[in-house]
Amino acid sequence: MAYTLYSAWRATAPYRVRIGLALKGVAYDYVALDLIKGDQREPAYRAVNPQGLTPALDIGGHVLTQSLAILEWLEETRPEPAILPTDPLGRATVRAMAGIIACDIHPLNNTRVGRELHKRGVDPAGILAWTQRWITDGFDTLEPMIAKYGKGFAFGDQPTLADCCLIPQVYSANRYEVDLAPYPAIRGVSEQAAAHPAFQAAHPNNQPDAKPA
Amino acid sequence: MAYTLYSAWRATAPYRVRIGLALKGVAYDYVALDLIKGDQREPAYRAVNPQGLTPALDIGGHVLTQSLAILEWLEETRPEPAILPTDPLGRATVRAMAGIIACDIHPLNNTRVGRELHKRGVDPAGILAWTQRWITDGFDTLEPMIAKYGKGFAFGDQPTLADCCLIPQVYSANRYEVDLAPYPAIRGVSEQAAAHPAFQAAHPNNQPDAKPA
Repeated sequence: MAYTLYSAWRATAPYRVRIGLALKGVAYDYVALDLIKGDQREPAYRAVNPQGLTPALDIGGHVLTQSLAILEWLEETRPEPAILPTDPLGRATVRAMAGIIACDIHPLNNTRVGRELHKRGVDPAGILAWTQRWITDGFDTLEPMIAKYGKGFAFGDQPTLADCCLIPQVYSANRYEVDLAPYPAIRGVSEQAAAHPAFQAAHPNNQPDAKPA
Repeated sequence: MAYTLYSAWRATAPYRVRIGLALKGVAYDYVALDLIKGDQREPAYRAVNPQGLTPALDIGGHVLTQSLAILEWLEETRPEPAILPTDPLGRATVRAMAGIIACDIHPLNNTRVGRELHKRGVDPAGILAWTQRWITDGFDTLEPMIAKYGKGFAFGDQPTLADCCLIPQVYSANRYEVDLAPYPAIRGVSEQAAAHPAFQAAHPNNQPDAKPA
């Protein structure tokens, strides 16, 4: 069964799924969407994912959407290597870390929100400050959690769902010039991930549609 | 073990967890936070949940945060009645529905975002239009999914994680005067839930801190 991932090199939600696919050793075809040009709103992509958001993963006729749902599906259909701990409390902690990023940071900072702020008269400096504010808020919460539960990665010494979300968010934080000095635990995970083949394979600069500066 | 839920009557994220707790038949103590007054930012609550967001569920020494993580934890520790289907594809669909609400609608519309928009010069009418836009976007995606997979509830004929998220979001849509005429499938689920004891118990108007108009 050939899988197809609808992705965009710098977008954090498909980046999460690329990490999960790489961790699980799943091969896939890559379809690039240009989010600036607006590919995601075109009829061709709406036929794949009516919501017009990335990612979407076509698993052979059935299309999965929503990055967290896709990662949970990967975990359930390919349990090894596990990206969730075995005990319910550990799983709840990892999912809470993922939720802080996927619910409380990223939704406020994506392309369509920036467009909407612009439309309502917020200038570029205001949009940048807005973006930084939500990243900082979320990282302020994540830092002590990772300091407590992390042993190299965000929870323990192996990559989990939390790292699938965290590493793309760190990439975004760097892109939007957030000072990471106050976050040594997060920076530690970021360094660990930079040396891991799955995180390297999933990195924006290593995608077919990459346009690194 | 006595559980304590930190909640606010109208906030949709704790409302989701109240539905889950009621569906699973879990008793709990209720601590009300006044989000307008800012209880969630006070040191007393920061000691419970440093992020300063609702809900938090104290399960006897350990505090769980993030509504989706709490609902998944409930499902794993109390499998009956199930709020996720048994097959991975069904589970992915339910989680995608939950994600559309919990990641793509609600984070853009909560109290702290309204405050931030106000600070950046967006007037009350602009904030209302902003709120309505994200609800409408999300409901436009959910409506055909529920029409396809729902049989009374959002996925099948029993409440799932999707309904735990959908019903609070419908409550919020009504509060923010979103026209639900274009969403017959969503309205159908809402009517079904209104007759269900767990959804009744979790309803904002039935909370200790309710101030119905």
